[in-house]
Amino acid sequence: MALKTPEQYEESLRKLKLKVYLQGELVENPVDHPIIRPSMNSVKKTYELAQKPEYADLMTAVSHLTGEKVNRFCHLHQSTGDLVNKVKMQRLLGQQTAACFQRCVGMDAINAVDSVTFEMDQKLGTDYHERFNQFLLKMQQEDWTVDGAMTDPKGDRSLSPSKQADPDLYVHVVEKRQDGIVVRGAKAHQTGAINSHWILVMPTIAMGKDDADYALSFAAPADAEGIFYIYGRQSCDTRKLEGGKIDVGNREFGGHEALMVFDDVFVPWENVFMCGETEFSGLLVERFAGYHRQSYGGCKVGVGDVLIGAAAVAAEYNGAAKASHVKDKLIEMTHLNETLYACGIACSAEGHKTASGNYLINLLLANVCKQNVTRYPYEIARLAEDIAGGLMVTMPSEKDLHNPEIGKVVEKYFKGVSDVPMEQRMRILRLVENLTLGTAAVGYRTESMHGAGSPQAQRIMIARQGNLEQKKQLAKAIAGITQDKAN
Amino acid sequence: MALKTPEQYEESLRKLKLKVYLQGELVENPVDHPIIRPSMNSVKKTYELAQKPEYADLMTAVSHLTGEKVNRFCHLHQSTGDLVNKVKMQRLLGQQTAACFQRCVGMDAINAVDSVTFEMDQKLGTDYHERFNQFLLKMQQEDWTVDGAMTDPKGDRSLSPSKQADPDLYVHVVEKRQDGIVVRGAKAHQTGAINSHWILVMPTIAMGKDDADYALSFAAPADAEGIFYIYGRQSCDTRKLEGGKIDVGNREFGGHEALMVFDDVFVPWENVFMCGETEFSGLLVERFAGYHRQSYGGCKVGVGDVLIGAAAVAAEYNGAAKASHVKDKLIEMTHLNETLYACGIACSAEGHKTASGNYLINLLLANVCKQNVTRYPYEIARLAEDIAGGLMVTMPSEKDLHNPEIGKVVEKYFKGVSDVPMEQRMRILRLVENLTLGTAAVGYRTESMHGAGSPQAQRIMIARQGNLEQKKQLAKAIAGITQDKAN
Amino acid sequence: MALKTPEQYEESLRKLKLKVYLQGELVENPVDHPIIRPSMNSVKKTYELAQKPEYADLMTAVSHLTGEKVNRFCHLHQSTGDLVNKVKMQRLLGQQTAACFQRCVGMDAINAVDSVTFEMDQKLGTDYHERFNQFLLKMQQEDWTVDGAMTDPKGDRSLSPSKQADPDLYVHVVEKRQDGIVVRGAKAHQTGAINSHWILVMPTIAMGKDDADYALSFAAPADAEGIFYIYGRQSCDTRKLEGGKIDVGNREFGGHEALMVFDDVFVPWENVFMCGETEFSGLLVERFAGYHRQSYGGCKVGVGDVLIGAAAVAAEYNGAAKASHVKDKLIEMTHLNETLYACGIACSAEGHKTASGNYLINLLLANVCKQNVTRYPYEIARLAEDIAGGLMVTMPSEKDLHNPEIGKVVEKYFKGVSDVPMEQRMRILRLVENLTLGTAAVGYRTESMHGAGSPQAQRIMIARQGNLEQKKQLAKAIAGITQDKAN
Amino acid sequence: MALKTPEQYEESLRKLKLKVYLQGELVENPVDHPIIRPSMNSVKKTYELAQKPEYADLMTAVSHLTGEKVNRFCHLHQSTGDLVNKVKMQRLLGQQTAACFQRCVGMDAINAVDSVTFEMDQKLGTDYHERFNQFLLKMQQEDWTVDGAMTDPKGDRSLSPSKQADPDLYVHVVEKRQDGIVVRGAKAHQTGAINSHWILVMPTIAMGKDDADYALSFAAPADAEGIFYIYGRQSCDTRKLEGGKIDVGNREFGGHEALMVFDDVFVPWENVFMCGETEFSGLLVERFAGYHRQSYGGCKVGVGDVLIGAAAVAAEYNGAAKASHVKDKLIEMTHLNETLYACGIACSAEGHKTASGNYLINLLLANVCKQNVTRYPYEIARLAEDIAGGLMVTMPSEKDLHNPEIGKVVEKYFKGVSDVPMEQRMRILRLVENLTLGTAAVGYRTESMHGAGSPQAQRIMIARQGNLEQKKQLAKAIAGITQDKAN
Repeated sequence: MALKTPEQYEESLRKLKLKVYLQGELVENPVDHPIIRPSMNSVKKTYELAQKPEYADLMTAVSHLTGEKVNRFCHLHQSTGDLVNKVKMQRLLGQQTAACFQRCVGMDAINAVDSVTFEMDQKLGTDYHERFNQFLLKMQQEDWTVDGAMTDPKGDRSLSPSKQADPDLYVHVVEKRQDGIVVRGAKAHQTGAINSHWILVMPTIAMGKDDADYALSFAAPADAEGIFYIYGRQSCDTRKLEGGKIDVGNREFGGHEALMVFDDVFVPWENVFMCGETEFSGLLVERFAGYHRQSYGGCKVGVGDVLIGAAAVAAEYNGAAKASHVKDKLIEMTHLNETLYACGIACSAEGHKTASGNYLINLLLANVCKQNVTRYPYEIARLAEDIAGGLMVTMPSEKDLHNPEIGKVVEKYFKGVSDVPMEQRMRILRLVENLTLGTAAVGYRTESMHGAGSPQAQRIMIARQGNLEQKKQLAKAIAGITQDKAN
Repeated sequence: MALKTPEQYEESLRKLKLKVYLQGELVENPVDHPIIRPSMNSVKKTYELAQKPEYADLMTAVSHLTGEKVNRFCHLHQSTGDLVNKVKMQRLLGQQTAACFQRCVGMDAINAVDSVTFEMDQKLGTDYHERFNQFLLKMQQEDWTVDGAMTDPKGDRSLSPSKQADPDLYVHVVEKRQDGIVVRGAKAHQTGAINSHWILVMPTIAMGKDDADYALSFAAPADAEGIFYIYGRQSCDTRKLEGGKIDVGNREFGGHEALMVFDDVFVPWENVFMCGETEFSGLLVERFAGYHRQSYGGCKVGVGDVLIGAAAVAAEYNGAAKASHVKDKLIEMTHLNETLYACGIACSAEGHKTASGNYLINLLLANVCKQNVTRYPYEIARLAEDIAGGLMVTMPSEKDLHNPEIGKVVEKYFKGVSDVPMEQRMRILRLVENLTLGTAAVGYRTESMHGAGSPQAQRIMIARQGNLEQKKQLAKAIAGITQDKAN
Repeated sequence: MALKTPEQYEESLRKLKLKVYLQGELVENPVDHPIIRPSMNSVKKTYELAQKPEYADLMTAVSHLTGEKVNRFCHLHQSTGDLVNKVKMQRLLGQQTAACFQRCVGMDAINAVDSVTFEMDQKLGTDYHERFNQFLLKMQQEDWTVDGAMTDPKGDRSLSPSKQADPDLYVHVVEKRQDGIVVRGAKAHQTGAINSHWILVMPTIAMGKDDADYALSFAAPADAEGIFYIYGRQSCDTRKLEGGKIDVGNREFGGHEALMVFDDVFVPWENVFMCGETEFSGLLVERFAGYHRQSYGGCKVGVGDVLIGAAAVAAEYNGAAKASHVKDKLIEMTHLNETLYACGIACSAEGHKTASGNYLINLLLANVCKQNVTRYPYEIARLAEDIAGGLMVTMPSEKDLHNPEIGKVVEKYFKGVSDVPMEQRMRILRLVENLTLGTAAVGYRTESMHGAGSPQAQRIMIARQGNLEQKKQLAKAIAGITQDKAN
Repeated sequence: MALKTPEQYEESLRKLKLKVYLQGELVENPVDHPIIRPSMNSVKKTYELAQKPEYADLMTAVSHLTGEKVNRFCHLHQSTGDLVNKVKMQRLLGQQTAACFQRCVGMDAINAVDSVTFEMDQKLGTDYHERFNQFLLKMQQEDWTVDGAMTDPKGDRSLSPSKQADPDLYVHVVEKRQDGIVVRGAKAHQTGAINSHWILVMPTIAMGKDDADYALSFAAPADAEGIFYIYGRQSCDTRKLEGGKIDVGNREFGGHEALMVFDDVFVPWENVFMCGETEFSGLLVERFAGYHRQSYGGCKVGVGDVLIGAAAVAAEYNGAAKASHVKDKLIEMTHLNETLYACGIACSAEGHKTASGNYLINLLLANVCKQNVTRYPYEIARLAEDIAGGLMVTMPSEKDLHNPEIGKVVEKYFKGVSDVPMEQRMRILRLVENLTLGTAAVGYRTESMHGAGSPQAQRIMIARQGNLEQKKQLAKAIAGITQDKAN
């Protein structure tokens, strides 16, 4: 059976020998570290829900390789229905975790690498696709969480990989051997890296001939020799060390991002899926980014559902739920959130089959989806802050609430409507804070902005995919312009 | 064969004896009146494209009643694919006419009346659905253009139909006879009324017991005894009387809206589909409005394509196409336009089967779609005006251009880039004017705002469909709130 | 006495021998032409209000040349109080005309030419400023309306004046004689040209050495030999020919823009204020544009007041005035309108004295003001259309209302609340149409966009004036960055 | 001499016996507590700059009571020039601290209490104004920082003070004695409370007759018997305990907010300025809120300057400063920030004299100012996050940078352009994080939203001050509506 239980997933992580630095120290036991743990819980949720019959349609699928049931995160989309279900699964998980659940990057990576290796082989006579199929088979059988790793540190953005002062700022081959390659460099902003079994590396930009060493895709175990991680710090991360249950806002779930360093890592040829084919680098980026831009039309919508709900609860607790402006703001938040969802669904429903047989989203609409994600969560958050009230950021700590001397004072003065215990109000406001300013804001705001490519990257794609020439012809036809150059 | 040729359509209109008033006069021949004609051309386009093999998938469908090919405008949606194709057909026609092509109201009306009459019969034991099927059969066989007529004049908006000072401000029954009913009242803002063969009347709001006479749905020939029309005037309408070809902006196509008056019109029972069932009035409104809100995610997007193209051409003609801010504005226009399209597609792809067997859109997403349509066309138009430049509204008339004395002066001074004749620049700017300020602005702006219900109507539906309770539960679960009332 | 009565103003216009083409014909009598007349009425209002004691503070000022009372439109600002009063006068006139009243261009031109000629003389030893003073003295004594003419047709925007295919696309000197110069070219989009006594020409862009013939500023009588005008057509312009009183929306007032052609016009040296001093061309543009961008923080706010009022009346007439969403939209419209006003006031209050002694606005804030004017009137208009309802564009003509047969039908069905005659509702909706789609929309929308420079022109100025370097230093100081380059 | 040096200010705080709880513990020494200290530094800056000759015009003023030079924060505005200088002083301090510097509440409180006590005395024959003058005299002589305390906890927002389940949720009189009164209750969200010498209490809403005990204004020493404070926790507050210099983002400055509890505090009559005069409660709120809404047009603009600068530096450090979209975003940020400033200046320049002699801002424009502050800082922050890039939230901690083992790795991979040390990049990104998500986001975002009243409070004032009736009359005049009711 290809589905791991959540317990098996946690156990499998414990067996990994990940080398992780966090705030200047090597972490003994990442799985139980209070700062890391919530992110593991989020990934674990993807295993837990896959076990539940009521979510089977969304959380699992039938492998096109084996005919067995696999977690959808390990699946290649076989229809537009699969693409749509992917988005619905992501919304579900966003609702249940109120966080980035991190496993999407692997799903998006395998779907992109699949069709690109196929097309590469078709054109260049290479055999990457078969290698990749072997990797995918194991991934499905073991129900791995895979970190699809794309973004390099990039250094000076005005220079290409091979022109950087330091040649290692993009991941590259430093040695080609008979049995494999040795790679060096780093991937930045790696979502869920510490919770993954394997890494699937891809290049991060379209490349020219000079960048051949950087046109690189391969898979490696997360704890391969030479790989180590430096954990990124988030707003309010250390609240998780305080031992409380309220001030963290979201006690159980979270996300993380880390720097993943490749310090001369050996990769056998069987795990190499691109090596020097610069002309396919841009295509791989475009496809992975496209899938990942679709993803945001699901996951961020789910988180948005929680934030809208939290704002509504906060309004109830302070006796303002019936004010017409509050109701109108909740409608606006819902409207914006559902617009994101509509974009996620539309780019899926309008997907098409690739040469390799899996399904690709409509790229124009996927980019439109992500472009909206760089805007609306910010406005939803702003409206949530409006409804929640200033108390969200001026409230005492839970230690004050539990202090024998002043706890009663806190309870007395921060009570809202009389029949709701003050602690509940504190909880809901801390959740709003968590999503708008705290650890989850990193996912709900900044990641919405920069994940799967910064806003300008989508605009470039919209320009390319928007077919402006056709639009100009339509306008000329209506205007009766048959000849527009002087003869 | 159920498909009329465009010529047959025009001929069939000529046979109607419509009574139309326009600017204080009874119109002799509506089909050839220069102010009305462009709107007839738009509807005619729906017949013309249905004849073309390349558009067969979008423009036609197989009737579930007869198995014959029918124009999609006469079709009940049999799948989500049908719903999606409807939107694509509408975008196509918007692109080809740059106007409201007016035939959607009939299609949206039949789909709404179908499922509601079925459910009414199920609950109340009436036989409206069978009557409606007979009407639909004839509509498909004759390839009728039908005016789905919903909006009543409404008088004082703070009062219900039966409470108005004048009892006729909403269409109502004034006499029930053995062979049928006599109706009185008017429908306002009737899109395409003068180009339709039949009228399909529906109530315009949810009603209470007191309003039983107003809970009314029926069909009538457009030239039935007692029906007459007063044509609505549009911005720049009389330019069409000037005899020129440029200043009208869009020489061939347009749309219209009219007041349709029922001056004690007799309707036989076989054409009555609701009469007094007040509890189904709101449902019919909700469904028709839902379908029509979906429609805007297609038709306005097509018109938007033309406007984006026109702005791009205008920029080329004045030598500014390469300016980064111009390119960025065109991207923004495209982004907004495709967001509308995504909403149109999403509410279709997420549709579901009704009890009667046809397919209904996802109502939440359809309302989200329309809500965006009340905003983005305005911003697209604003950006088009930005790119087009002020010349659009300060340019002399085409009579000046053709004047022997000053024509050369006009040509000399309003030339943009040297290799494009000035007349072409005038044409494209007049098209932008037409869409942003002129006759087509009525469709692209005001109709986007108020067609299928004003913005607040969508907000009410979003509030109803948004499932705020579930969102509140999600938030409480994350916040660890298990009990939120003091015990 | 330096103040003309409105009657004297009209009389003085009748004495001019303006050569005006309108829709392909030479106009016999511009003052009484129904299309032109409303724009004359607007300018006339500036004379009428100057006679009224209650407006004396705003409408008049004491000349710094003569110590006599002059119309503020002929005045050089002598303090920040004068700058503030200018904006208040403009708001007042916008409120009273609901149109562009056209006289501002002259006021803004004299204030710009004054300081620039002074600084030119200081640096280059020329004597332009004294010549200009003589012109100004006559302007004040005669209470002239002066057309400050800046914008050239521009042709291919990617080319400079001297590089255009046609050398006449920017106004230039074609001959220098002992007694004066001969000029050729045209000025486009000239607001109020047909209602002016004199023209004050300025260059339209910063220029390089090659463009010396185009660096030109001079004054000429509006009916000088060789000058003629081609009238620009506006949306709905011909409604003014229909003889009605309602459909025009604003029966009394309007604005116009025209092409002003200089067909080898002789200008004596005493009226030349710049001729070849290319390095001062950009400065003159910047100052005139600055003053004119300030102006929009007054005039458009006044028009906005009327539109907000019209929307509120429309809501009352249809019984929706108490709906919370209607009230909220009126608040939003007010908020946006007052934000524009705040910008107009702020750039005035923060003005400073120039070398020549008159006062200049704060250029950064004046550009910020205009940038907002390119956005908010569009949103105010959109909200007005929302509140007004679709009837605004589907209503029959006033001829229908006055038709003996169907007039009663129109009255019956378009009545709103029962105690307001339907004609009043028609009037208010036609006013909203006039401002959002009709002749006045040209002023309220397109002119807000492009008048005094298109949006991008303001952004360039904001970048220049925004002092980004200081902001970067502030940030580094806070961040503790004392040295930011590697040594 | 009435000006304290910064050292004297710090010394004077050390002498106070403030009772402050922070995270469940009583703080021994608030002045040196690492979480509190930065907020003290901000207030100290107001003393430091007042000593500098270059800032004398902005930072100081001449007392109308004594003719001596006083810190502007202790001054009653004597002219519109004073009101404008207040805003400029606030922008300056925002630029220098990148934080809320907290002293404004006292300045705004004294200006509001001054005119209201005067008018109260005029109408009711009370002697509050003279008492207040005595208080003000001491405040100026001692150069006190005063906490203007308005906001009560409010409990159930749908209930008035006297109807709350707990009578103490609004500050009220519990005993009136011959020598004074005893008060109980709390003030929430008190900015700068821990850094103030005195407290000036005001009521928080308009009140009815039943609320007489709550219509209360008085002054008390910050360490009066019975007063204690519970410190509010901010996003990322504990980073200040980590001992580093980079991760805090802003090492020197910050702000704070606290709950201020009045546990039966005795106030002698000489310090009571309102006690039961419910009809003046609303006026005092309106005036204080008005002044404070003006304040935000200065202080937040200064902080915005720093954020814009930080974004520009971040772009330089990653080699993207020349990208056109980056430049355009910096222009947009500047435009929005200057729009806020324009509103701050305009409501000041349009101020007027009150009956007591000090100057009041234009209330409409002050509310418009604050309404914009609830929107634009959020958009400026969003654009800053866009430009800064995702690294801002995925970067390792400074402990990682300083770790001997992995410090070099961090430095290597997070370097941007080659000639800027990585640490500088870390510093600038942490500053952006601080302002958008961290401790300063509490001030720049949430306080912008809720400080001086939540958005809806401004909308109510805009509705009241917007003079809709006049606008309706203007519209009717233009539309030719002389009689709008049927006779």
